[in-house]
Formats: sequence, structure tokens, C-alpha cells
Amino acid sequence: MIIILKKDAPQEKVQELIRQFERQNIKIHESRGVQEYLIGLIGDTSHIDPEDIKSIDIVAQVKRIQEPYKKANRKFHPEDTVVDICGRKIGGGHFQVIAGPCSVESREQMISVAQAVQKSGAGLMRGGAFKPRTSPYAFQGLREEGLELLVEAKKATGMPIVTEIMDASHLPLFEQVDVIQVGARNMQNFELLKALGKVDKPILLKRGLSSTIDEWIMSAEYIMAGGNPNVILCERGIRTFETATRNTLDLSAIPILKQKTHLPVIVDPSHAAGIRSLIEPLSMAAIAVGADGLIIEVHNDPEKALCDGAQSLTPEAFDSTMEKIKKTVAFFGKGMD
Amino acid sequence: MIIILKKDAPQEKVQELIRQFERQNIKIHESRGVQEYLIGLIGDTSHIDPEDIKSIDIVAQVKRIQEPYKKANRKFHPEDTVVDICGRKIGGGHFQVIAGPCSVESREQMISVAQAVQKSGAGLMRGGAFKPRTSPYAFQGLREEGLELLVEAKKATGMPIVTEIMDASHLPLFEQVDVIQVGARNMQNFELLKALGKVDKPILLKRGLSSTIDEWIMSAEYIMAGGNPNVILCERGIRTFETATRNTLDLSAIPILKQKTHLPVIVDPSHAAGIRSLIEPLSMAAIAVGADGLIIEVHNDPEKALCDGAQSLTPEAFDSTMEKIKKTVAFFGKGMD
Amino acid sequence: MIIILKKDAPQEKVQELIRQFERQNIKIHESRGVQEYLIGLIGDTSHIDPEDIKSIDIVAQVKRIQEPYKKANRKFHPEDTVVDICGRKIGGGHFQVIAGPCSVESREQMISVAQAVQKSGAGLMRGGAFKPRTSPYAFQGLREEGLELLVEAKKATGMPIVTEIMDASHLPLFEQVDVIQVGARNMQNFELLKALGKVDKPILLKRGLSSTIDEWIMSAEYIMAGGNPNVILCERGIRTFETATRNTLDLSAIPILKQKTHLPVIVDPSHAAGIRSLIEPLSMAAIAVGADGLIIEVHNDPEKALCDGAQSLTPEAFDSTMEKIKKTVAFFGKGMD
Amino acid sequence: MIIILKKDAPQEKVQELIRQFERQNIKIHESRGVQEYLIGLIGDTSHIDPEDIKSIDIVAQVKRIQEPYKKANRKFHPEDTVVDICGRKIGGGHFQVIAGPCSVESREQMISVAQAVQKSGAGLMRGGAFKPRTSPYAFQGLREEGLELLVEAKKATGMPIVTEIMDASHLPLFEQVDVIQVGARNMQNFELLKALGKVDKPILLKRGLSSTIDEWIMSAEYIMAGGNPNVILCERGIRTFETATRNTLDLSAIPILKQKTHLPVIVDPSHAAGIRSLIEPLSMAAIAVGADGLIIEVHNDPEKALCDGAQSLTPEAFDSTMEKIKKTVAFFGKGMD
Repeated sequence: MIIILKKDAPQEKVQELIRQFERQNIKIHESRGVQEYLIGLIGDTSHIDPEDIKSIDIVAQVKRIQEPYKKANRKFHPEDTVVDICGRKIGGGHFQVIAGPCSVESREQMISVAQAVQKSGAGLMRGGAFKPRTSPYAFQGLREEGLELLVEAKKATGMPIVTEIMDASHLPLFEQVDVIQVGARNMQNFELLKALGKVDKPILLKRGLSSTIDEWIMSAEYIMAGGNPNVILCERGIRTFETATRNTLDLSAIPILKQKTHLPVIVDPSHAAGIRSLIEPLSMAAIAVGADGLIIEVHNDPEKALCDGAQSLTPEAFDSTMEKIKKTVAFFGKGMD
Repeated sequence: MIIILKKDAPQEKVQELIRQFERQNIKIHESRGVQEYLIGLIGDTSHIDPEDIKSIDIVAQVKRIQEPYKKANRKFHPEDTVVDICGRKIGGGHFQVIAGPCSVESREQMISVAQAVQKSGAGLMRGGAFKPRTSPYAFQGLREEGLELLVEAKKATGMPIVTEIMDASHLPLFEQVDVIQVGARNMQNFELLKALGKVDKPILLKRGLSSTIDEWIMSAEYIMAGGNPNVILCERGIRTFETATRNTLDLSAIPILKQKTHLPVIVDPSHAAGIRSLIEPLSMAAIAVGADGLIIEVHNDPEKALCDGAQSLTPEAFDSTMEKIKKTVAFFGKGMD
Repeated sequence: MIIILKKDAPQEKVQELIRQFERQNIKIHESRGVQEYLIGLIGDTSHIDPEDIKSIDIVAQVKRIQEPYKKANRKFHPEDTVVDICGRKIGGGHFQVIAGPCSVESREQMISVAQAVQKSGAGLMRGGAFKPRTSPYAFQGLREEGLELLVEAKKATGMPIVTEIMDASHLPLFEQVDVIQVGARNMQNFELLKALGKVDKPILLKRGLSSTIDEWIMSAEYIMAGGNPNVILCERGIRTFETATRNTLDLSAIPILKQKTHLPVIVDPSHAAGIRSLIEPLSMAAIAVGADGLIIEVHNDPEKALCDGAQSLTPEAFDSTMEKIKKTVAFFGKGMD
Repeated sequence: MIIILKKDAPQEKVQELIRQFERQNIKIHESRGVQEYLIGLIGDTSHIDPEDIKSIDIVAQVKRIQEPYKKANRKFHPEDTVVDICGRKIGGGHFQVIAGPCSVESREQMISVAQAVQKSGAGLMRGGAFKPRTSPYAFQGLREEGLELLVEAKKATGMPIVTEIMDASHLPLFEQVDVIQVGARNMQNFELLKALGKVDKPILLKRGLSSTIDEWIMSAEYIMAGGNPNVILCERGIRTFETATRNTLDLSAIPILKQKTHLPVIVDPSHAAGIRSLIEPLSMAAIAVGADGLIIEVHNDPEKALCDGAQSLTPEAFDSTMEKIKKTVAFFGKGMD
């Protein structure tokens, strides 16, 4: 971290600040030019918030040199993390498609969709039991019952299941869940992240609606710092001024994340656009830009879906899109084993 | 709700859709023009998500006529809600200033700041015990111990306390807290909102970084639908492209909220700008635009603050700002009793 | 256009409004339900701004049914527009790469870069002679002299040239230019758009930094309404809160544009990200999502480039990227003839 | 400017870079710590774009220490600029209200509105003759004829006139105009800004929809660098994700601008919100936060306004708002002479 001091900073204040850092075992390199006066902090500064330093009267600007994340940082872990979910691998050249309905609605629905997406080539099954809804009057998901139906579909097909958690206190209900999803609205629910750091299951961490890439990595770092190294990042669109799509899918984030972190990154084209006809082209783009997987909504009867029907594919449409996904993944040199 | 159908929608599909609504006790008014074909839904449609309807093949567009919120809606509750906190009133012409440090750090700090802000005219005291921090390595607050120090400061001064909750499971610790704050990052932590709906304390609901005004009111509705009518809204800046300020304070939201809802609305100029010198002018603007209160960070030694020092006033600076606040509140016709 | 009236709108005011529309040759369909009262406007309403109608006291809401653009609208022109530039085709299955330096700097530079990109397979050459710069003290381009150097490079290689115009009064200087580019900052410089509507050359219209897709199409409509049908749209990133990339490339815009309009759409990965290492992955994504071309910055010595070096490829790096572009374009079924 | 080099930057490349700067008469201060290696640039760096330096291979980060603007910079011009328009002063404690219709429509309208707003206390009159419209099919203003009607209203009332220019080639028509307005969409029409730098009239420079405060000041610098010191800045809302208001009025920009620049700053509450009922509260907030003036739309018959009626006040409503404006301006210690 480099701290640019005000040119007229009184020496006694500068020395007091330096002593404060030294007490935290940080070494200081002082440098005074004609135009600038700065001190460099040498050592572990990950616990220091640059915003705090900025508040000090004699400080003009603060510039972080080292990223504030360690466990998620590719610098300290150059090889790709490969997350293994009951034998299905994501990351490091392994590509997976996660498919299923937005909401779990009934046993028949779950089993029929699970069988269909499995046949088309999906590796994991998704389905929402706990549903975050903007309105308290909207359908909130089947909750415990939904989790049971997911487990039944897993038994019927052998596919691992991915489903969203909304509160740390629900964790005991998630024992048979294979991948626990953290939704966009909970990306900075730090108490939940801490609880998931102690869990022995992969976490699918969606990007918050208005979270920067760095904030997102820091949320992964919360989970990893707690002891859970298996984090899968999921880009699902950010909130911008554009209203033609529900959110703006930030595909540039994929190569940026690949440089900054070793974690696998997947893309959710269904929620990003909120438009059925965009799922296929955005899936192609996600593969081309370097994503390690896709999570796609598939519903046996999208027009009667209790939520988010507009962004669900029918099993037939999914099957046709999967044909293209398989060829494109192969073209770009990844495997879907 | 008005549903604009596609002009070539087949009659049997339209009739099926109409029957679906009728089963939910919604009456239908059908209207077919040359250019447009639409059906109006008559009855309570608050549980229907327009996004779901949009997914139906024969539907071109959906337009909500009635707001999806009821309890928070000024239409059904024309008079201003006045929230009473141990005799301090907010809303309906009553203006309150909440002041105190970002983080509770020590007994001496809390008591000295509390006494100072009380003397300057603040009605309530704030202080963070549980701190949401972007980094897992940053100071996370004194937690339980911080709550105890807040309670001590309350005993010493008689001022009611406002502090943030981060997880529903912490609620038992908040028994002596007078106003429970929900932070921006938890504005759509729906499980937490539901839990707070069952609490018998006023809730200070901060606006999410990228939440629309309507989403924010819906989060208040979650709390109110659970049975707790005492919600205070707090505008604290939204995330935009501008980087000169930490967030962009959306003061237009105040008069908009005053039209849509009967709840009191306060403004947080400290977090919005993240710049000490902007607290006073933004406070003046907040009063002028119609806010019912302010929440201002005051720290006895901002340069040594463990978090957010850049946006804290010293007690002396706060005292000087309070002089102007009192005169301006009076000028705009509100009382600070 | 559907106008939703306030339920208590007095009949005489409604009739006055209806007469106003009828005087503009618009037919009216009135419909009054229990919940809603609305009038549908039948006829050409493209000159009516819904914002104007909203201001009328008795109006609750206005909803456009028909898009306000005609010439750019795919509904009235279902087949793809193919723009032909001296035999190079863009659109309708034809893919082109436009390459060259951000700024024209010297004869040697332009000719050497032009020859290099031509050899690698670029179809058109770009280079900025008039440069829009945030600062009045920054290099503003070689202007007239830059245009001359572009023309020389064209003579040396036979490649058509694409370059930016900043003011309608410069048009006489652009006689030998093959494609006139409108920069993001001028996307709503309506006087310039009108002037370009009278020009007999293809126009490359970049998206404004904070322009919606609909506003962008309306700017194309300005040019087309003036009589010039040859507009190529260019997505180059929008301004969002994310700072890891210079702008956020909105690749969802490509399939949306393909539905709304028949015009060719290309992508500028260099300006979008502002990061050299992102050019290749974003180019792959652009092809995969359905773009009709790419515009890529190539500089013979990016480290000494007078502007935007960080986003330029060397001719060697461009050559390697072009290899992948060619294979990927073929994989996705387009031709680069 | 401080350039943070990569730690492993080869000495010969560093020395080459240093020589490059020295050739531009920039002195260098080199500093090498354990963690960081940096060079400080001493001298005038306003022509250097940090983005260009970032592209150099050996450079890790670039940090500007000095603002890139000089003439607009308060550091070099500490006292407030007071712009004098035929005796009406703006800035340095002088507050002005500019009022009038969005579009000039007829002689009767202009004269009647001008007389009305003058009587209510407005100091200057506005009216659009050249109108930037999103659609080529919408009313584009009366243009030359509109300018003539403005001049007639000026003769009838003696009020100076403010009106928008859309292209530098129209300048000869603006001879009798007292203040030339640059609209939000043209804030970075650099050729227009250069032309206005040579004009001997005050320029009202509106903020671009997605322009940062620094970009906005740089656009003022374009005008001032050309020789015209009389620039008035006008905040009119920025584009964000919020749709409850047309734009998000950024009132924090006012105190920020007051620190960075000596130019007067006014606020446009009509365009910012696009809602009539918000004009008064936002005007109060603008005065309270430190603005030097307001520009308000007033129309004798807003419901029949050819554009932007929803955001216009009637002369009666304006008169009532002016009463409050006058009292509030006095309360906050400014004069309206």
C-alpha cells in the first residue's frame, strides 16, 4: 500500500502515523520528492481498509498495490482450481451445464425435468426450494418440501443437485444438497458467507447486482478464509441503465476473473437477460469468452411456471441448445466429462 | 394490472389464461381495439409478478396499475406515520438527528461521544457493534461486547440506541436496542426482513446500493406484512458511475417516497458521500427536500477510527453543524422535540 | 400507443384530448373498465413523444405499442441489410474485421500497419485523424493531414478506410473516406446525424456511453430518415459502476439488435475493455453471440502510441488473434469474403 | 503524476521511459522501495493521458496528483467567478433564476411567459429554439424563427435570454443571445466547445448524462482554454438504474464542484426529475446545498406543450415556488439582485 501524504504534512504527525503502522508489524519506506511525499507499507496490509487511511488529515491519497485477497488470488495459487461434485468436475478445462427449473413445484415436474436435462447432457440439476422474491405476497418456494423433492429427483437420476440457501440457520436442511448456491442479493450477507466457510460442500457464489469484481472475489475470500476452498463464481448480469434486458451480462468479467483468481467461473444466461431467445447466443458467448460452465433454466411448461417463466427453456429447446453447447465447448478446447 | 395480448393470440389460449385468473378470484375486463387487444385484471393482484405473466406466449406486455405494496402505501394510509422511540418522534413534522460513531470501540469512546452529541441536540445515538465489512480480514466490530457498551452509554445518557443487525439469529442480543438497523447490503435479505416483521421495535431500513425505490418499499412491506408497522426508511446513496463521491445521494427519492408511502424517511449524508466536508451541505439539502431526520457519524478521534473515519465529524464539528441543522429544520417548519 | 387515463378524468377533458389526436389523423379506440380507463391511438404515432402525453393532467400512464423507428425496424424490412464497402460486405452472413491504429501518426506507421493487418486478413483499415479527447491539452489528432495519410495508405494497399468525423462542417474533407465513423460522444449530435443522412457513404455509428439500445436505433433512424440506408452499428461498451474494465461491453445488445433491426452490428473490443489481454476473448465472444464484424486497434509500437496504447495489439499479436477469429467465424457459419 | 513501475521492470526500459519524459521538459524523481518502484513526474503533465502511460509494459499503475484542469481550477483562482449577464450576476453570493418554456412556440407564448416569470422574480428568460430530440420525427424546434421570437420577448421585457446551440455553424444566428447553452448530449462535442471558447458570451454548460464531474470540468476547460472565462455549470441529473425519476439529480456534485472549481454552478430541477411536483423540493435542496442559481421550465399551458410538458410549471405555480425560493435564498445568505 502506498500512502501519498499532503505536501505540507507536519513531521510530527507523519512520524506518529508511521509509528502506528510499525506497531502492526508493517515496515515503512519513506520517499519525499519535489511534487510528492509518500510512504510505502511493506508487509501484510490485507486488514487495512484504504478508506480508513484516507480519513487521516495528512493523507492525500491511498493506493493499494497488493490485492486484498489471498486464498482466492491466482498469484499465490497459479493453477486452476478444479471443483469436483460427485465426480463432475468444473474448472481447469472441465465444463459443466447445470439445468433445471427456477422453482421446484412438484415431484413430477422435478423428476421429468431432471430426466430430460440429463438426457440432453446436463451434468448437474438445479431447482429453487427457497426463493428470494421482491414481494412478500409472491410465492416464496416450497422450502423444506422443495428440498425433499430435489433429493427425490437426485435419487431417480443420480444427478447432483444445486440449490439456493437464504439463511445460515437453514444449513441443517441442506445436508443432501451437493452444491449450495448463494444468490445475488446475499452476496454480501457476510454472516451467511462465514457459515458457508465451515461447510464441506462446494459453494456457487452469484455476483451481486451492483457488486464490483473485487467485492465479489472478497466474498469468495470470506468463504475460503473460513476453510472452504470450493467456491464456484457465477456471473449473472449487473444492474445498469439499460432496460432492454433485465440485467447487463458482464462477459468481460470472465477473463478478468481468470487473471485475478484460480476459481472456476460459470455464467447464468437465463437470469442475466430474462429473455428466452437470448439464452442460446449468450451461452455461445460465455463458452467463447472462457467460462467453465453454464446454469440454465429449463421448465417443462414455462408458461405456467410459478416464477421466471419468461427466461426458461422447454426441455426440447434445451436439448437443441445443448447440441450447440457441446460442439462449441469442444471447439474451444474444453471437456464436458 | 393490464395485460396487452399479441394481436394474433388464438382465442382458446386467451380464454385459458382468463380462466386461470378467474380461479384466483380475479375478475377480467376484455377489450379489443384495432391496434391493441388487452385484458384488465380486477381484484387483488399483489401476489402476481408481472415478469411471470410476460413469459406467456400470447402476452406482449404487462403494465401494473396498482402498486404492489399495501401496508406501506399512502393511498390506503394517507396520514404520515409517526414513529415514537422512547418519546422521540420521527415523521409527521417531527425531525430527529441520530449521531454516533461508525463502530463501537470502547466504553470511554461511546459514553463521551454520546454525551457530546446529546449536548449538541441529537435525539438518538448510533454505533455499530456488528459491522459488515467487504474484507474478512478487516475489523468486524466488537459484536456482543459492542452491544453491551451501547447499552451502557444509553444508561449514562438516557438516549435511545440505534444499531445494525446482520443475521436474524442475533435478535435475542438486541433486546435493549431501541431501533434495529438493516444495512444496505441486507435490504433484500428476506429471511431477516421476515424475522423483523415479528419484532416489536422500530426498524431503520437502509436503501440497497442498487435498489430502486419500489424494491425498497417492497422490503419495508415485508416487515410491515409480518406485523411490524414501525419502519423508518434511510436514503444513503446509490451506486453509479460517478467516483468523486463514494455513492450518489438520491435526494429526489425523498419527495417520491413521501408521495408513495406514509413512512418517515431520513438521510445518511456520512455514508452517501464518504467525505467529511460534504456532511453539512448534504444535511441542509436533506432538510430542504423534506427528510424527517438525519443519521450522522461522529467520532471523538476520526483519524484513529477503526472504520470510516473519512466520513466522521469530530464532536466540535458536529456541534457547529447541529446549530445550522436546528435553524434550518425550524425554517422549513419542522420540530425537533 | 395506449393512454391510461386517471379513473376520475372529467369527460370534457377526455373528449378534448381525443379531438386533439383526431386533428392529427389519429383514430381513437376508447375502453372503460372497472379498474382502468384507456384510449388506444390508431395510426402513425412516431412523432408523438410519450413523455409529452404523460404531462397531461388526466393521463396516468402511456405505453407505446409500436416502436418509434421505421426505416431501421426489422418488422418492415425483414431481411438483413448487407453494407457493401468497395466490395467488402458486412451483414447477412458476411463478417469483416476493421483494424488499425487509434490515431494516425505518420505515413510510415499507417502504411506499415495497413500492410500488416491486410496480410493478417483484415478487410478494412481504421485510423483516427480527428480525435475526441477529454482534455483540451491532449493530442487532438493530425486532422486534415491525418486524413491525407489515410488516403495514402489506402492507395498503397487498396484497403477501404474508416475514420471518425467530429463536426458536420468537416464533411468536405471526407470525400475519399469509405466509411464515416460517428463516435460514442457524438451519437446524439443530431445536427451531425442529419448531415450524414444526406451523404452517400456507409456510416459506422458507435453506441453512446450511456445510451439505451432504443436511443441508439433512433440515432440510426436519423441517418436513415435523411436518405442514407447504410448504417453499421458498433457496440463499444457502456458506462457502469464496474471499474475493472474501462466500459462494460454489452454483448446482449447484439441479439437484441438483431431482433429489432436489420442493420449490421459490429463490436469494438479494444475500447470496451481498454485492456490488451481482453481483446481476444471478447472477440471470440462477439463472434459467438452473432456480431457481423470487429473493429480492433493495432499499433506497430503500442508503448509509444500517442493515445490508447493500452488497448492496442502489436501486428504480431493481431496476426495470432486473426487466426482464431477466422476459424471461429467459420465455425459459427459466417464468411469473411 | 506518479508512475508505479512493475517490480521486475528492466533498468534499460525504465531509463528509456525517463528519457522520454525528460524530452518533454518533465523532471523525474525516482524512488525504489522493497515493495514498490516508482517515478514521480515533476512539471506540467496536463497534456499526458494516464491511460496512455498505463499501456506501457513496465508500468503497473498511474496516479495523477495534479488535476488536469488549470483555468477552471480553484487552486489557481481561489476567488469565486462572478458571471455578469447584462447586469445580472451569478456566482460569488449572487443567485439567479432562469425561467421559461422548454420550446419557443409562438410570439404570444414567449412574451406572456417572459412577462409572467419576470414579475415573479426570474432574472433571465430561457426558451429552446433548436431542440435536441431522440426521434427524427419529433418536433425539432422553431430554429431561426424561435431565436427571433426570443429576441422579441427580450425587447418586450428587457430580460436577457438563454438558449441552446446544437452546432457551431449556427453561431452567427446567436448574436443577440445573452447566454449560450450547451445541452447534456453535446457536453463532449469538442468541436462545438472549441468554437464557444472564441465567443464573447457566457456559456451555460450542462452536465452530460453519464459524465463524471472531472470530465465535466474538462469540458469547461475546453471553453476557457479557448479564451472564454465565463462558464456556468448546470447539474441536470445523471443516468442511473433508478426509473422513478427521469434522471438522478446529483446534488453532491455542487459542493464537490465548489471545492474543485471557482465557476458558478446552477441546478435544473425540471429536467432532472421530469416530474412537476418535484421541482419545488429539489429547488429548495439545490439552494440549501450551495447552488448559485436555478433553471426552471415554465409554460403558460403545460398540457399543450409541444415538448416536456410533464416537467413544466404554470406561471401561477412558478410564482408560488418563487416566493419560497426568494425566502430560502435569503435564509442561506445569498442575494438575488
